[in-house]
Amino acid sequence: MTIDATTTFSSPGIEKIRNRWVETDSMAGVGIDPDIDKIPPEIWGEIGLEGDTADAIFLFNKMVIDATVDHAVDFKVNSNFFQGELGRKALATTFAYLKEEYPAVLRVCDGKFADVGHTADKIAEEVFGELDADAVLLNPYLGFDAIRPFTDWKDKLSILCVNTSNPSASEVQGLPLAGGVPLWRHILELGLSDWNYNQNVVPVLSATHASNLEGIRDEIGDVPVVLAGVGSQGGDLGVSVPHCLDDSGYGLMISASRAILYPEREPGESLGDASRRAVVNLKQAINNAKGNV
Amino acid sequence: MTIDATTTFSSPGIEKIRNRWVETDSMAGVGIDPDIDKIPPEIWGEIGLEGDTADAIFLFNKMVIDATVDHAVDFKVNSNFFQGELGRKALATTFAYLKEEYPAVLRVCDGKFADVGHTADKIAEEVFGELDADAVLLNPYLGFDAIRPFTDWKDKLSILCVNTSNPSASEVQGLPLAGGVPLWRHILELGLSDWNYNQNVVPVLSATHASNLEGIRDEIGDVPVVLAGVGSQGGDLGVSVPHCLDDSGYGLMISASRAILYPEREPGESLGDASRRAVVNLKQAINNAKGNV
Repeated sequence: MTIDATTTFSSPGIEKIRNRWVETDSMAGVGIDPDIDKIPPEIWGEIGLEGDTADAIFLFNKMVIDATVDHAVDFKVNSNFFQGELGRKALATTFAYLKEEYPAVLRVCDGKFADVGHTADKIAEEVFGELDADAVLLNPYLGFDAIRPFTDWKDKLSILCVNTSNPSASEVQGLPLAGGVPLWRHILELGLSDWNYNQNVVPVLSATHASNLEGIRDEIGDVPVVLAGVGSQGGDLGVSVPHCLDDSGYGLMISASRAILYPEREPGESLGDASRRAVVNLKQAINNAKGNV
Repeated sequence: MTIDATTTFSSPGIEKIRNRWVETDSMAGVGIDPDIDKIPPEIWGEIGLEGDTADAIFLFNKMVIDATVDHAVDFKVNSNFFQGELGRKALATTFAYLKEEYPAVLRVCDGKFADVGHTADKIAEEVFGELDADAVLLNPYLGFDAIRPFTDWKDKLSILCVNTSNPSASEVQGLPLAGGVPLWRHILELGLSDWNYNQNVVPVLSATHASNLEGIRDEIGDVPVVLAGVGSQGGDLGVSVPHCLDDSGYGLMISASRAILYPEREPGESLGDASRRAVVNLKQAINNAKGNV
């Protein structure tokens, strides 16, 4: 299958993203990576002596979610941050809360999974079944066997880590193949064609080398893009956002976690207000960059 | 760094494997992937009405561990099988039991992780700190950033999924690079040189195309190999084992999970006896294949 600028993709997960872009006029997302050591004192005060770690993590997540939801396309919950028995309890209550209170927002489980056979089936059942996430992050190194157990859930999204934004990503993903293209471009094509029989694969691309994104819409049609590496990792919004826009004027999702979870607070400012200010800043910075087309 | 047949590697994790090979005269391991739906009635009977799912999973694991440990180099516990709050409880009790009762056996956490920054630190702290696993399985697609948080624990082992044995692995891992070698061979070299500053990286190689392993010792020195894909995935022990032997007459680890966890039982045979029979069969089949050198 050849993908060009005119290729269209649609599935329930993709439409949920598109609806949310319009509803919020935002392409910003919130990464939920709660670090127990950074949970502020007011949360511990509120749960009281009866509460445990799981209660504290959940209450912290809830506060950030409630404060930022009006400007968020998605909440990307990193399951690798929810360790141990109490961590998993907080993971379940966080997903349940999102589903119950804010069903229109995309719920992403960021596990970067890659496993096969009955293990992969088990993960998919947990993430899409038990937690009822809308989307999961996957690692392509094991090939289609590690993808299909997730893409078979046709109403769910599989977000494929095609090109990540960490400094050493190019060490593997940037390796030139015999045909001349770097590995990640080959994975991008595989992901959007052979692996995309349910039109529910969405790629992660990196903003750290923005020139890589030039003309990218000619190769990926109108599929939403998860853009990584903006901000502290050095990706330039002004260059990378215009490359990823689709014909509707949206087309991408950019999430921040630490800047929103642990924002700098102004004197007397509540944590919720500071988190909201951080996500609004991100939303506006992305929208301002649209003008650079 | 160039690695050839004379390159030697040593670290506490590697020595633990070598000691265990000699102690048991076995290169067999046991994969602990407990499926709640397959836990036999006698386990449920034993935990009684007071017990929960976590108790049942732990008791099942304990029974398999006790029955097979005399012939096992390692127990490879797949954390992706331990989902939810009760799953994580059982994961913790299983690792604690192994450490307490059988400290000489290698404890492997098979999560196939690939994440970076503070997420990777968090995973390493959980796997090596909290669970006190000796080794973890890692996926190389994100490059060194996703490896270093683990290899920095110099007394622990990082088992790198270089070439996996699932049918579609070659779709990505077998891609020929511009230099001519397939991707997995490049990852093998990276993993054993640049990423191996603590001599604590061990590769997973696949037995499914045994000709790939011909002469492999010339490229990897004496590092232990985790050999995947023997048995139901079609790898031929008789061909692949001789290629991976080191000068001591050992050199590799092969684990089975379902064949040992859910063995066919003879009339009147206990589950423990059937599991022991299964691991002894695997051990002997591997040792018999050594004769083919």
